Amino acid sequence: MTAEGSERERESARRRDEATAFVPGHVTGFFSAHPADDPAVAGSRGAGLTLSDGVRVTVESGDRRITLDGEVCEMPPVTRVLDAMDVDAQVRAESDLPVGTGFGVSGAMALGTAIAVNAAFDRDYSENSLITIAHRAEVAAGTGLGDVVAQARGGIPIRLEPGAPAYGELDGIPTTARVEYLSLGSLSTEEVLSGDTDRLSAAGEDALSRLVARPTLSQFMVDARRFAREAGLLTDRVESTIADVTEAGGEASMAMLGETVFALGTGLSNAGYEATACRTHTAGATLE
Amino acid sequence: MTAEGSERERESARRRDEATAFVPGHVTGFFSAHPADDPAVAGSRGAGLTLSDGVRVTVESGDRRITLDGEVCEMPPVTRVLDAMDVDAQVRAESDLPVGTGFGVSGAMALGTAIAVNAAFDRDYSENSLITIAHRAEVAAGTGLGDVVAQARGGIPIRLEPGAPAYGELDGIPTTARVEYLSLGSLSTEEVLSGDTDRLSAAGEDALSRLVARPTLSQFMVDARRFAREAGLLTDRVESTIADVTEAGGEASMAMLGETVFALGTGLSNAGYEATACRTHTAGATLE
Repeated sequence: MTAEGSERERESARRRDEATAFVPGHVTGFFSAHPADDPAVAGSRGAGLTLSDGVRVTVESGDRRITLDGEVCEMPPVTRVLDAMDVDAQVRAESDLPVGTGFGVSGAMALGTAIAVNAAFDRDYSENSLITIAHRAEVAAGTGLGDVVAQARGGIPIRLEPGAPAYGELDGIPTTARVEYLSLGSLSTEEVLSGDTDRLSAAGEDALSRLVARPTLSQFMVDARRFAREAGLLTDRVESTIADVTEAGGEASMAMLGETVFALGTGLSNAGYEATACRTHTAGATLE
Repeated sequence: MTAEGSERERESARRRDEATAFVPGHVTGFFSAHPADDPAVAGSRGAGLTLSDGVRVTVESGDRRITLDGEVCEMPPVTRVLDAMDVDAQVRAESDLPVGTGFGVSGAMALGTAIAVNAAFDRDYSENSLITIAHRAEVAAGTGLGDVVAQARGGIPIRLEPGAPAYGELDGIPTTARVEYLSLGSLSTEEVLSGDTDRLSAAGEDALSRLVARPTLSQFMVDARRFAREAGLLTDRVESTIADVTEAGGEASMAMLGETVFALGTGLSNAGYEATACRTHTAGATLE
């Protein structure tokens, strides 16, 4: 499509009160949980990879109706974003990634909805305000603590301080990589986060200290594997898959929170697995 | 190129101690200058557009030699980055954009050098550290105050607080746009910044207050035009070109600091000018 052609298409979409945002997926390698009464202050420290596979969210004026890959679904963080922005709209999400398996699909849907509503309904919010709305919605719904701020940033985010933009602080690992992933099943983020997170958070804080001292991708992978072990979140299937990748000379760890293995380069396929390949994503969430 | 093919190419470049970074161009619409003794604290408030046209910087081990589009050149911010990172290297920059005309080419070269040196020589800096090194180098060289932090972020950055990551604060306008530009000549950033900047900074602070209250692209263009007028930086040629774009129903302003006009959409070509077209860039500076 030519630049002018796509410009015309965008213009015509605006006239229909419709807009689309793309939000990269995000696998967290390790984290510590930092609850707070105010969901804008609450969040997590940690680090992860944003992915070129992500979620495309289209918002259009009309009765409230949320679909994911064509299926009507309940998605409390999206409902909370629509409430916060005081709008009724149809939200259609198309995801490259499975939901509930540690790719930040709920965070992506919340953030994509906020960005697309702002454009479709001429709402005049700044980026930080939209990120704050989506982060609050995700935290209040209990579906995530750090995906939204990472997905808004792109790259390989290190979450130094928890919370929405006014409170949180981010750095990053200055590189890019091919990433392979394989989902074996889902884990409930709500269940893990509502349980005792002391052990998990202690392991996450240790991992962050090590990564800040040496912010490289290989250090991140070492930290992520150690965190998965120390936090007691490894399932047998995930553990043996990671071991197979290591055996084949690669680097893999577990996506927090899902029964999902991610690997650098061709780690999973070298170990004989049928994995999906993408790259780390250079940009944060953006209007299309 | 396939993902695996480009992966192999990157690997082989690493073995040669070579790396390449892409840094988007950046046109500032308005700004206020905030000098300080520490160049990490100094900087500017303001807002601008990062551009998909930018600078590709390749760093390779060897004697120090800086080239821009094949020509050996003096580039003090790049020299300062090499000094700060204690490295001798060849720096080859290929730019889509003319130097000295308000596109942030010097900032792009400084930041691209920092990112590429880190990768080529396995230096283990974080992204914020690399941005700080490049920002300090640019400020100390007197060639810019806010381009580096904007170019590291991408999008349409609003610089709320001046300075490198530990001090500065950014927000953004959550949209994308086609941009046209036309360079009529150069202005010396060093000359303008070393003169009396009180009037300019007062106009920049007013513009920022208005944009923060309504962070949209059309408000940005209105603020940028008013700033150019109030700061007394308009040249006759720039003023008449902007007037022609307005006459033809478009929106244009002046790039700070260069004798350059930028317009949204097809503003310049609709007014009959032979302009170059690109888009706002969604990502910040990144390793290739």
